[in-house]
Amino acid sequence: MSEDSGSLPSKNNFSEWYNEILWRAEIMDVRYPVKGLYVWYPHGFAIRKATYGILRELLDRDHEETLFPLLIPEHEFMKEAEHIKGFEEEVYWVTHGGLSKLDVPLALRPTSETAIYPMYALWVRSHADLPLKYYQIVNTFRYETKHTRPLIRLREITSFKEAHTVHATWEDANNQVEEAAVLYREFYDRLCVPIVMSKRPDWDKFPGADFTLAADVIMPDGRTLQAGTIHHLGDNFAKTFDITYEDENGGQQLAFQTCYGISERCIAALISVHGDDKGLVLPPALAPVQIVIVPIIMKKMAEEVAQAAKDIEAEMKTAGYRVKIDDRPLRPGAKYYHWEMRGVPLRLEIGPRDIENGVVMAVNRLGEKTTLPRENLADGVSSLLDAFKDQLMASAVGKVKEKIHIVNSLDEAKEAVETGIAVVQWCGCEECADEIEKVLDVSLLGDDIRSEYIEKAEGKCIVCGRPGKQAVVGRSY
Amino acid sequence: MSEDSGSLPSKNNFSEWYNEILWRAEIMDVRYPVKGLYVWYPHGFAIRKATYGILRELLDRDHEETLFPLLIPEHEFMKEAEHIKGFEEEVYWVTHGGLSKLDVPLALRPTSETAIYPMYALWVRSHADLPLKYYQIVNTFRYETKHTRPLIRLREITSFKEAHTVHATWEDANNQVEEAAVLYREFYDRLCVPIVMSKRPDWDKFPGADFTLAADVIMPDGRTLQAGTIHHLGDNFAKTFDITYEDENGGQQLAFQTCYGISERCIAALISVHGDDKGLVLPPALAPVQIVIVPIIMKKMAEEVAQAAKDIEAEMKTAGYRVKIDDRPLRPGAKYYHWEMRGVPLRLEIGPRDIENGVVMAVNRLGEKTTLPRENLADGVSSLLDAFKDQLMASAVGKVKEKIHIVNSLDEAKEAVETGIAVVQWCGCEECADEIEKVLDVSLLGDDIRSEYIEKAEGKCIVCGRPGKQAVVGRSY
Repeated sequence: MSEDSGSLPSKNNFSEWYNEILWRAEIMDVRYPVKGLYVWYPHGFAIRKATYGILRELLDRDHEETLFPLLIPEHEFMKEAEHIKGFEEEVYWVTHGGLSKLDVPLALRPTSETAIYPMYALWVRSHADLPLKYYQIVNTFRYETKHTRPLIRLREITSFKEAHTVHATWEDANNQVEEAAVLYREFYDRLCVPIVMSKRPDWDKFPGADFTLAADVIMPDGRTLQAGTIHHLGDNFAKTFDITYEDENGGQQLAFQTCYGISERCIAALISVHGDDKGLVLPPALAPVQIVIVPIIMKKMAEEVAQAAKDIEAEMKTAGYRVKIDDRPLRPGAKYYHWEMRGVPLRLEIGPRDIENGVVMAVNRLGEKTTLPRENLADGVSSLLDAFKDQLMASAVGKVKEKIHIVNSLDEAKEAVETGIAVVQWCGCEECADEIEKVLDVSLLGDDIRSEYIEKAEGKCIVCGRPGKQAVVGRSY
Repeated sequence: MSEDSGSLPSKNNFSEWYNEILWRAEIMDVRYPVKGLYVWYPHGFAIRKATYGILRELLDRDHEETLFPLLIPEHEFMKEAEHIKGFEEEVYWVTHGGLSKLDVPLALRPTSETAIYPMYALWVRSHADLPLKYYQIVNTFRYETKHTRPLIRLREITSFKEAHTVHATWEDANNQVEEAAVLYREFYDRLCVPIVMSKRPDWDKFPGADFTLAADVIMPDGRTLQAGTIHHLGDNFAKTFDITYEDENGGQQLAFQTCYGISERCIAALISVHGDDKGLVLPPALAPVQIVIVPIIMKKMAEEVAQAAKDIEAEMKTAGYRVKIDDRPLRPGAKYYHWEMRGVPLRLEIGPRDIENGVVMAVNRLGEKTTLPRENLADGVSSLLDAFKDQLMASAVGKVKEKIHIVNSLDEAKEAVETGIAVVQWCGCEECADEIEKVLDVSLLGDDIRSEYIEKAEGKCIVCGRPGKQAVVGRSY
């Protein structure tokens, strides 16, 4: 029985901290022998399962889950001109089957529009079929030539949730875009991860879309992580793939579409926003182990303590919690270290004196101790876990607010993006955006900001002085 | 609102019936523009989800779920000589990323030994790490040149559950093989699908294994479907991938391994064993909709009936059932047709007279009617669904028994394999097996039979007359 040891780099060195926590908390192993491909450890996979379980729960309210093939024949993939342009440098191609060359090269989906929409052309017949709202959770592939990073920039995105909807009108599709924005906000609320949503500039939208909304997470180092996108596809793909429906008067109409995706970047955000120098910090809903019970075994009452731990475990299971007893022959401190690293929200300690006093010592992942009455323990635990979740959200919001800087000049913006994002006034033209991006070495992330942390305001473009609108700029992953 | 119409081909024409039920019951769409790749409809996907949910539940007792990359670099894939020989004609190769040729071609996993075991070499250090039992559920690929068929012979196997275990000794690994056999039996019991397990002949084992056990399902046309395999890998892969552990005395030892897999063929078996001329028949645990409520709306008491249906729905939900009200403006007959096609185990009808009498009419998928008291309806429903499950199992066992023929000669065997499988006596040598396979146009599936439907017996080889052992022969998919 070996003890974990060694400490994480401080989270102030975020990049080092991130690389190190991935293996210390047993999320991903980066030693797979192909660049940009990583292995999910069981603990990481359990976090993934909980995370995507929430995403499924939210989507299943009014979407249905499906599954489409990974391989897309070249002729379908090449149909939509804008789309190809956006992806041609990133697509993996299967060219051989067994020992022979394939007649038609097959693309590994970088995203599934061109796999799904030929089928939608068959499935959508009448206005009564609309709206159609399907999603799938699949692996997708990008031949990344830039620096790769687990969960953030990968060659196999193992966990891409992509929803694809079809509607009768542009407005219906637009309403769906707004619904998806609400859904994504709810999803990230469950993760206690604050997001800033904005509309990407036209030159940065999804290839083939009318426009793109994106959710950005502000990471501890102040850089932004695009952690979800929502695309209004207009009738662009419908034209290409011939997706039409018969309207109520018997006429054929082009359909309008949306699609929206979230990848395992949501887990990168979860880890990065909450983690600390001791390891992961997980909101209870996402934690593979929500409660760890550590029996404090002394010579005195050893059996009673072991039994008490088992009783508590049974009670917590009955109450629906994912719970473990750590009865390994290790020092308590080593056990605390182990479970703190893995982000377990609540530790329950029970020793001889606790039994005598009819109490249990509860310690949350942030180190706060509470003495809970042994009787009706599940109620006490439930309150603590609820409070813990609220605390994580409040803390995350506090940190995000510190990283959002409302600025009035290029100089102020330059300083702001060293530690977070800048909200600037921008006239909306590409030249001024170029200037901002060049001078500040940032991306103009978007306008039409949706964020409760950013108060709406009017002003003049920080480059040209013409009337502006608010835009978010920052350095993105 | 359109009505479904048209009928299935009789199940006596099994092949036609199978192709047709896949789209009529909305399981898979075969119109995807690449041979051997199919699309899961939402209803099919929901069956898949329930099925793999059971598999996960059974495995999670003492396995952990992980996820490894799809792409395997050529040099890893080519390490195990036997293994390559077995797969070289079936592997898809990715050769290009974007517009450039890859330095190292990447195989799409046909199975994941060569992706997983380089990592196991890193993960397994000490005897304390053993046994190690991980699994994943992933898409795998085979470049099939034979006739492809949805769920049965595919180019993208969308749902391959593969478990990979590591042990200290050959015997430990062998015990795991036996445990996996028990687990697979339990899994198929949950599906109410009888299996016949046997040990594949040496020339038919998994490439690189010491031996292979396989679960065969006898399909309605008498052909067998290999629906699960369990491999004892000995230390063959451990040698190739250098998987060693430190024993209690500090010495380095080669590890022993097993792996066992189940693909979406389990769903092909589920559909085929239970379905009938009206459509799918699903055991309650596998049914996306377990109960459909059909309100019988007349002029009289229309509102009360609608309300009663809603009340019943709420009660069934509370009791944990997946339930739907069908209140579409269609004839009741059209609704019955619709839900029977989709395999819903139980239909509850409620009309004015039922309300007056305080009853609900329950009709199971096989057409058996029961009048249930409205009070404590969930209890009555629970009993009916339990009985329905038992009935499906009994019926499936009955049909399987009819298809198993114990025979004493090649001639008898020849007749037997026209309608099912033959259990023959076989001396164990390859020449006699070749003779049996050639004369009967069958496969010798295996010996060391594990089946409660086949009584053990001794006899003489039906080819050479030497002392034999029981072996299963049949025509396989």
